[in-house]
Amino acid sequence: MPAFADKLAAAAERNRSLLCVGLDPDPARMPVAGVAEFNRAIIDATSDLVCAYKPNLAFYEALGPAGLDALRATLDAIPDWVPVIADAKRGDLDNSSAGYARALFDVWDFDAATFHPYMGRDSLAPFLARPERGILVLCRTSNPSAREFQDLRVTPMAGGDTLPMYEYVAMTAVKWNDNGNVGLVVGATYPDELERVRDLCPDMPILIPGVGTQEGALERSVAVGVDERGRNAIVNASRGVIYAGDDPTTYPDAARNAAQRLRDTINRVLEDRGLGWNA
Amino acid sequence: MPAFADKLAAAAERNRSLLCVGLDPDPARMPVAGVAEFNRAIIDATSDLVCAYKPNLAFYEALGPAGLDALRATLDAIPDWVPVIADAKRGDLDNSSAGYARALFDVWDFDAATFHPYMGRDSLAPFLARPERGILVLCRTSNPSAREFQDLRVTPMAGGDTLPMYEYVAMTAVKWNDNGNVGLVVGATYPDELERVRDLCPDMPILIPGVGTQEGALERSVAVGVDERGRNAIVNASRGVIYAGDDPTTYPDAARNAAQRLRDTINRVLEDRGLGWNA
Repeated sequence: MPAFADKLAAAAERNRSLLCVGLDPDPARMPVAGVAEFNRAIIDATSDLVCAYKPNLAFYEALGPAGLDALRATLDAIPDWVPVIADAKRGDLDNSSAGYARALFDVWDFDAATFHPYMGRDSLAPFLARPERGILVLCRTSNPSAREFQDLRVTPMAGGDTLPMYEYVAMTAVKWNDNGNVGLVVGATYPDELERVRDLCPDMPILIPGVGTQEGALERSVAVGVDERGRNAIVNASRGVIYAGDDPTTYPDAARNAAQRLRDTINRVLEDRGLGWNA
Repeated sequence: MPAFADKLAAAAERNRSLLCVGLDPDPARMPVAGVAEFNRAIIDATSDLVCAYKPNLAFYEALGPAGLDALRATLDAIPDWVPVIADAKRGDLDNSSAGYARALFDVWDFDAATFHPYMGRDSLAPFLARPERGILVLCRTSNPSAREFQDLRVTPMAGGDTLPMYEYVAMTAVKWNDNGNVGLVVGATYPDELERVRDLCPDMPILIPGVGTQEGALERSVAVGVDERGRNAIVNASRGVIYAGDDPTTYPDAARNAAQRLRDTINRVLEDRGLGWNA
């Protein structure tokens, strides 16, 4: 199979899109009852507008065995050429880490997954050893409490000036990238931090969640989050797309319209910088 | 239901044990084929010797839907009065965090679970809000790479002297403990760090994984890991107990013997300090 980065680039190019849609089914908000049905309709309405899909496993695990059946049906509904990122936020050690690698990459066959850095390099070894899969390391997350640890000033192990924890995580992720399969997660809600991380990691894919209804934050995030070719940013919107409509008949159209608006906004930013898609 | 800390204390007192057995079924090492059968035999052989069981979810997720069926059968086989800790190492935000809380505490009905601190307080809010469940925050893990981030010297947000990241996590966990349901995870492989964490958090339960075959590390960990009453340490052994025997007929006896030796070693440390179990 192709490396995650290549599959991502091909899907982005084909759909002229850096938009990722988060498939986070919440029974309290879905306009129809079935998770698989809901996701399939969203996918059918948006698969020509995205560079990736990102199911967050929490939403499926919360529904018990039926939720995992729905996740399987969801993955089956995604076209083969669209990469799928497991927003799993795992992080364990030794045999347990190997178990999660098997679960995410072999049982579920995700193209990439998100991970906690706190336990260090050996905790990700079974993932890093899979050059065809993407390893997206949580760096600066989009929630308000992110600052509690991620903004702490730390002294590098090798000595030198202090720097924020999230920058040290980004610099460490570069060292983990022997197989070229490492990327980062930086929330759209913190564009200054995103800009700094892009400077530190010029070539890595960056997953940028937290894009809501504020297009200002979106535009700034895209401008500073892409690489120098205007690529390698995975701009994720979840609720703003999948719950754009609440009518059980027209919600797929509403999702499509929301996804199209976001993709177009992103593409205008790229074009303004002379980094649009090739004809 | 009783608070996790109370259920833990009652089971520990009843079995005169601080030993937790990690139920981490690995098909490559089990002497029988069925995960549920294997776990049930281990549980039947050890449930009067432990203060808790700790399945690591990675081992079950690695086996796909059948693994989760086996996890359900495993939980059904554990006596009601023995607390069960989900070694899940989750950590997400907002609705996703709420989804994991539902999955772990409502769908699976675990008494406690382990969590990554990196995303900060709000990421654990749906868990902290469940006073009857235990929230065990990864502080200083037992793997070699733990030092990569956990030993970094950090400057507290409020200013003051630098201190190691894991100490700052421990001090922050104290602030999260409004509902009295927070504990920590500190590996037995780092007894100096464990001693320091116990000083910072005199009353919290501490899950101490990484107890292998080295009884020296075990004894030191118990001595410094318990609270001043000689309680509130959850000393976990996984492979050293469940794979103590490889004969398909006698492995439960071997597991029982291994668990008994560990429990007795732990209890000798308590007795030496005048902190043994009441008559």
